[in-house]
Amino acid sequence: MPTYTPPIRDLQFVLHEMFDAVGTLKQLPPHGELDADTVNAVLEEAGKFAAGVIAPLNAPGDIQGCTLDRDTHAVRTPEGFKAAYQAYVDGGWPALSVDPAHGGQGLPLTLNQCLYEMLNSANQAWTMYPGLSHGAYECLHAHGTPEQKALYLPRLTSGEWTGSMCLTEPHCGTDLGLLRTKAEPQADGSFRLTGQKIFISAGEHDLAANIVHLVLARLPDAPAGSKGISLFICPKFIPQADGGLGARNPVFCSGLEHKMGIHGNSTCQMTLDGATGWLVGQPNKGLAAMFVMMNAARLGVGCQSLGLTEVAYQNAVTYARDRLQMRALTGPKAPDKPADPIIVHPDVRRMLLTARAMAEGGRALLVYTALQLDTALASDDADEKAAAERRVALLTPVVKAFLTDNGWTATSACMQVYGGHGYIREWGMEQFVRDARINMIYEGTNTIQSLDLLGRKVLGDNGKALKEFGREIADWVEEHGVTESMQEFVNPLADLGDKVTKLSTELGMKAFGNADEVGGAAVDYLRVVGHLCFAYLFARAAQVAQARIAAGSDDPHYRAKLHVARFYFAKLLPETAALIRSARSGVGSLMAMEADLF
Amino acid sequence: MPTYTPPIRDLQFVLHEMFDAVGTLKQLPPHGELDADTVNAVLEEAGKFAAGVIAPLNAPGDIQGCTLDRDTHAVRTPEGFKAAYQAYVDGGWPALSVDPAHGGQGLPLTLNQCLYEMLNSANQAWTMYPGLSHGAYECLHAHGTPEQKALYLPRLTSGEWTGSMCLTEPHCGTDLGLLRTKAEPQADGSFRLTGQKIFISAGEHDLAANIVHLVLARLPDAPAGSKGISLFICPKFIPQADGGLGARNPVFCSGLEHKMGIHGNSTCQMTLDGATGWLVGQPNKGLAAMFVMMNAARLGVGCQSLGLTEVAYQNAVTYARDRLQMRALTGPKAPDKPADPIIVHPDVRRMLLTARAMAEGGRALLVYTALQLDTALASDDADEKAAAERRVALLTPVVKAFLTDNGWTATSACMQVYGGHGYIREWGMEQFVRDARINMIYEGTNTIQSLDLLGRKVLGDNGKALKEFGREIADWVEEHGVTESMQEFVNPLADLGDKVTKLSTELGMKAFGNADEVGGAAVDYLRVVGHLCFAYLFARAAQVAQARIAAGSDDPHYRAKLHVARFYFAKLLPETAALIRSARSGVGSLMAMEADLF
Repeated sequence: MPTYTPPIRDLQFVLHEMFDAVGTLKQLPPHGELDADTVNAVLEEAGKFAAGVIAPLNAPGDIQGCTLDRDTHAVRTPEGFKAAYQAYVDGGWPALSVDPAHGGQGLPLTLNQCLYEMLNSANQAWTMYPGLSHGAYECLHAHGTPEQKALYLPRLTSGEWTGSMCLTEPHCGTDLGLLRTKAEPQADGSFRLTGQKIFISAGEHDLAANIVHLVLARLPDAPAGSKGISLFICPKFIPQADGGLGARNPVFCSGLEHKMGIHGNSTCQMTLDGATGWLVGQPNKGLAAMFVMMNAARLGVGCQSLGLTEVAYQNAVTYARDRLQMRALTGPKAPDKPADPIIVHPDVRRMLLTARAMAEGGRALLVYTALQLDTALASDDADEKAAAERRVALLTPVVKAFLTDNGWTATSACMQVYGGHGYIREWGMEQFVRDARINMIYEGTNTIQSLDLLGRKVLGDNGKALKEFGREIADWVEEHGVTESMQEFVNPLADLGDKVTKLSTELGMKAFGNADEVGGAAVDYLRVVGHLCFAYLFARAAQVAQARIAAGSDDPHYRAKLHVARFYFAKLLPETAALIRSARSGVGSLMAMEADLF
Repeated sequence: MPTYTPPIRDLQFVLHEMFDAVGTLKQLPPHGELDADTVNAVLEEAGKFAAGVIAPLNAPGDIQGCTLDRDTHAVRTPEGFKAAYQAYVDGGWPALSVDPAHGGQGLPLTLNQCLYEMLNSANQAWTMYPGLSHGAYECLHAHGTPEQKALYLPRLTSGEWTGSMCLTEPHCGTDLGLLRTKAEPQADGSFRLTGQKIFISAGEHDLAANIVHLVLARLPDAPAGSKGISLFICPKFIPQADGGLGARNPVFCSGLEHKMGIHGNSTCQMTLDGATGWLVGQPNKGLAAMFVMMNAARLGVGCQSLGLTEVAYQNAVTYARDRLQMRALTGPKAPDKPADPIIVHPDVRRMLLTARAMAEGGRALLVYTALQLDTALASDDADEKAAAERRVALLTPVVKAFLTDNGWTATSACMQVYGGHGYIREWGMEQFVRDARINMIYEGTNTIQSLDLLGRKVLGDNGKALKEFGREIADWVEEHGVTESMQEFVNPLADLGDKVTKLSTELGMKAFGNADEVGGAAVDYLRVVGHLCFAYLFARAAQVAQARIAAGSDDPHYRAKLHVARFYFAKLLPETAALIRSARSGVGSLMAMEADLF
């Protein structure tokens, strides 16, 4: 059975030493009183909760899965999930970074990000239940009426109720413009919702008293396609005016999917059989309203893979230290034992360091993005706020796709460290791989993320947001490029920055001539931008570590930072050479073959 | 539920048009009478059997799995497996490429390779049962006494009995030198075997009357380590002189593993509780004897991933043609439909073509290797035989590791084509991914394969086998490089050939100074050599296709060949840029970090 140790030290390194998170956040009006002790206390308690309460439920939850009672439409989650959720609510965790106006604790989203990394390491399937509430909260917070906010937000904040996103239908996932669920206006201002939804994570369960479904549907007179979609709130139980639970709304689970992984989370087919709903935001503007929820969810999915990468790494390291097999190529390293621990073998180290670099890089990127998100939400400087919004918009698809592709690579590498044992359920590694796989698909496939990045976020704004990010990197390069000991990190970073600029320009030119060029290069391009982020963040981490060591610290964490950064530049960054070559080869080799020759 | 169509046309292209397999094989004394009609008839019948009998059992077998009766130690395979095996035996398939002296049909191994590709596409878990018999057969054929051969080979040939390889123990997989199973000599010349084995594929099942276990164990006076291991034959039922079944031997299944995939195959913990066995070959030379079996098995594992790659590709194409989602970036392609089929999208094509190129390249590489294997076994020219043996030895780790890594990439890409549906069991794609994962691990992890290639097969013989292969490629390049229409294929092939030569030399020099340099670069190196094979084979395929088209053929298969070859050079070959850069960066970044900093 895998174990999990919250990476408090590295979270603190990223928060305090790389980004001076407290100093940054204190500039924002709601966080003027924040201090490092509070941050550290939250990290410690969150880590204890994740490792102590949630992690032990992960492997049993995978084996047990969820069950549906077809008579009552009730879904039973795996043993222990409900009690753990109650403990989560009792601990006030759902409220951590929520607006105090709705009962929240008002701490920065950056801290919530750290909490979620640890919860996801402990148990991705469980964490999806509270995770979906955040999206529902954000969406209602942004688009709900005052009455809707007053009724729903405090109960989502407390965790008394949870949320779900009812988007996908059997014939449409990516292309929501095709959806068919109907919303018929009723005399009392409500709507009658009828349709079928699939793949609804946490659509039905036994953890909370009520479930707040946010449903996309079509009004009778709606235009065809994505401009005719409206957003509705459709609770499992219709709340009474005082918030008490009224009638059971006919929005029920009609089937559970059998999936590759995340067995502990209920993936529901939902039937809306004339369910009562209320419009959220403007008619026919539902897709835009839903994107508030979706963007948060996309960062959340990147965070899921970060969590899996970290926990897979930790367990693989333990195994690699314990497992004795063969002698080092350079001669015995543990001559008193029958064989050397496999951590002496270069390729075992390569697999471990791949996962470690992906965890450290992913952690830094998510914290960096969360700080931008806090700034976007809470800054009182309009320019700063807008710039932070652009940065978040730019980085969201990168976080989602780059980190989830990395999570697949990393969990598979960690599983490989175990040899045959990695394939066996009891070791827990294969579950991490199976769980990680969904993250490349849901909340917009990684292909969709890449089109969002290249098509919309880069070419769509003429490269403005990318240039701003590039300027930040260039400024940093200029500042630290003069330090000789930093050149091994700064030079490849600067080189990659130049290449990204050239590649972006080249792809923009090609796209003028042929729109398919965007689709042909986008996936490669996104990974190149992901590497630019990682190269920047590893260089920054190395700079901090060097400075601490130069100042006399003998904390081994700093030595390790330098090793991991060197590994990243030597062994992972070279992927960009392949990606750029592939991206530049254009779309011809993809499009030339007639469909019937496939 | 996935479907499967045997790729007869492409097998014929590879056999007849790329390699003139019949012409080549007819030069070998046992195959002087071979003709193309026989080959084609075998392909057709094998395809019918695979698609009609075995494929329908794949998904149900995954869900049902194997069960162990702990009282009787009997293992029940999924419903239909036993009847399908009987049909396989009745069809004479186990005997296809077996020596007629032992009841075989004496057809080339190359044909058996084609049979196995199709069986693996249909059902990897089922195919492992007959697959393991081949290894046992080869091993006894090479090392058994005349009496052992007479007793066992005909029954393995007919399929009446199956085989197993009992190597791994809980504390040793890669490092068999550590194994502990004891073999005590008995007065009658037999041995009493006592120990625990794990991960024994097809170690117990209900398909055949007897199971011929080949067991590695230690004699009482054996030297420590890998030089003290002997090989024993240990049947489930002790055969009587006439081949009838005698006493049940105490070699029994004490547990079944719960695995990520290949649920239809029994992965057994085996207990040898004073079981009777007989020595095969020389005392303490068991590891070498076992390697006869292992090398065949390694090619077989590459073939498993080829099979999964092909079937995943076929189903993903069907889905991509049927699924309507979004419009093409260049405007509607199916304006009469609510959306375009997703095969219009460049990245969907990239995923499909990735799998297709990996299937076509893998098929060509395995047929190429099988022809060398037939030559190695059956040539009457000692030099030709030795050269073919060297070529097979060189390519075996490449086939095993490159094709299984590719199979993981390809099945995952095909699953991604399905979006959320790919993650759901009923579509069958996630099973291909789970099944494919074991192939990177068993029969020697892919890291072990890479060390075998770089350390033993390349540096260990001073590059002789690699140079011979390079010479073949260079000759071909010289012949076809003058054709202008071939330059898009020949130039990158020639360039990669030069790079492989330089990289091999560089790594050899570095290895003199530090043996770990081999371990640090081997995995990257193996994939570079894999690409050299693919680049050579795609260039050859393109040359054939161009020649056919130039001669007036309008067979779309040739046009498709050119498209896939162009895709390979544009989009997959660029990986070599990253691999070479990573390999050349050396082992420093892997070894510098102290083990306790991980």
